[in-house]
Amino acid sequence: MYIIKIGGGKDINLDYVLSDFKKLEGKKILVHGANYEMDRLSEKLGVEPKEIISPSGMTARYTDEKVIDIFTCVYPGLVNSRVTARLQKLGVNAVGLSGIDGGVWKGERKRKILSKEGDKVRVITDNYSGRVSEVDTRLLNVLLDNGFVPVISSPAISSEGDIINADNDPATALMAHAMGVKEIVMLFEAPGFLMDHKDPSSKVDFIKYEEIDSLMESAKSTMKKKLLAVKYALNLGVEKVYFGDSRTEDPITRAFNGEGTVVSQ
Amino acid sequence: MYIIKIGGGKDINLDYVLSDFKKLEGKKILVHGANYEMDRLSEKLGVEPKEIISPSGMTARYTDEKVIDIFTCVYPGLVNSRVTARLQKLGVNAVGLSGIDGGVWKGERKRKILSKEGDKVRVITDNYSGRVSEVDTRLLNVLLDNGFVPVISSPAISSEGDIINADNDPATALMAHAMGVKEIVMLFEAPGFLMDHKDPSSKVDFIKYEEIDSLMESAKSTMKKKLLAVKYALNLGVEKVYFGDSRTEDPITRAFNGEGTVVSQ
Repeated sequence: MYIIKIGGGKDINLDYVLSDFKKLEGKKILVHGANYEMDRLSEKLGVEPKEIISPSGMTARYTDEKVIDIFTCVYPGLVNSRVTARLQKLGVNAVGLSGIDGGVWKGERKRKILSKEGDKVRVITDNYSGRVSEVDTRLLNVLLDNGFVPVISSPAISSEGDIINADNDPATALMAHAMGVKEIVMLFEAPGFLMDHKDPSSKVDFIKYEEIDSLMESAKSTMKKKLLAVKYALNLGVEKVYFGDSRTEDPITRAFNGEGTVVSQ
Repeated sequence: MYIIKIGGGKDINLDYVLSDFKKLEGKKILVHGANYEMDRLSEKLGVEPKEIISPSGMTARYTDEKVIDIFTCVYPGLVNSRVTARLQKLGVNAVGLSGIDGGVWKGERKRKILSKEGDKVRVITDNYSGRVSEVDTRLLNVLLDNGFVPVISSPAISSEGDIINADNDPATALMAHAMGVKEIVMLFEAPGFLMDHKDPSSKVDFIKYEEIDSLMESAKSTMKKKLLAVKYALNLGVEKVYFGDSRTEDPITRAFNGEGTVVSQ
């Protein structure tokens, strides 16, 4: 079984990604982001994206009620529909899901979170984000066993039934673990892990588990979160994570061929 | 098996509808509209809802590329996620779908349509709407056979892979036929079919198939479309359609008890 995660950036080439995804034989799941469209719709609606910086220095999207509404518009709405329709057009019998459907991605809502603002730490109480802490594999298995291809993204659902913005990468890691998948492909808008994010020639070909922590220091915020998710996946028993470039032709094939960055146990 | 269609108006009471829906035993499908939220988001984005009036006098939402994007934000995004999450919270193992997923609702895109504007008839060429002409029951049956509850709404998908705005009511009729369901419940914001849409006491308790055409004349545009969809359903072999009021407690139970309007062969 394959689990392929694609980012939601502006420059991702969906044609390249989806026609390569189509070629994968057997069971497969696609996870997608939607950051670019999220920022676009937020801007059109005059809702400025706000970041929360945790005391430990990690950034996250501040998700109040207004933002979670835009989130459900964009992730399971605009982008999931587009990706699913394009796969259907290619002859892949895709079924668009969010973590809500069938309770696939369950998480706890972090209602109160700490936000670092300059030297101060503020408590935010109207937050609709969280982390996926449980994957219910039943719906995924029913779909896969019957030849359907799940296309999934955040949001997740909390135990209280709240819709929560949960980061796709750790959710993908936990889903891989729950589905017994040993390899994950993660495509984004870079050739792989770069020591200097401005310099494509600084790509690292291989990363061993033990090296992740030291690389985290030189990584930018989004890549730091990605590395954390990869570390989490490897801790859960995933054997390899392939980073690849969603802007190039055959990006999944190339990632499996080690043309990006391979992170392994 | 039950097929319950709820409107997407402002005053629908989702708590009443969904807790009554939860009580239905056995297989069930929920179809939902999202008109109110569609108008709200369109307005916020400065996209004025435009109506197309066909030469035969039927109105439809003019759906260019901008509008179909908002449509996918609202129908499978905001509203479907909300309904599905609320059902999950009630303990109903709901799975949100649009007609795109698993190719459930296939239709033809009416790319070129005629629009009556005063005395003139104009041809509109960038239209993303259509009509569901085929229901692929496989995904629905796989979900229902495994204890999941499909929650579905427009858009549908065209044979060319375009996302199309298709009216939920005729799609529901065709889906009932394809699933072998003989009764449909349709809930909206009125006690039933009213001879005078401003006067709740003008409710008609029973309508026979032969009477539909004559009632169509006194019906307002949205109710006219509903009656057309009901006629279509009865033509396809559905035996009864129950109209009921989504603003009252136990609206499905009441509709089945004949407290709204019962349309039958």
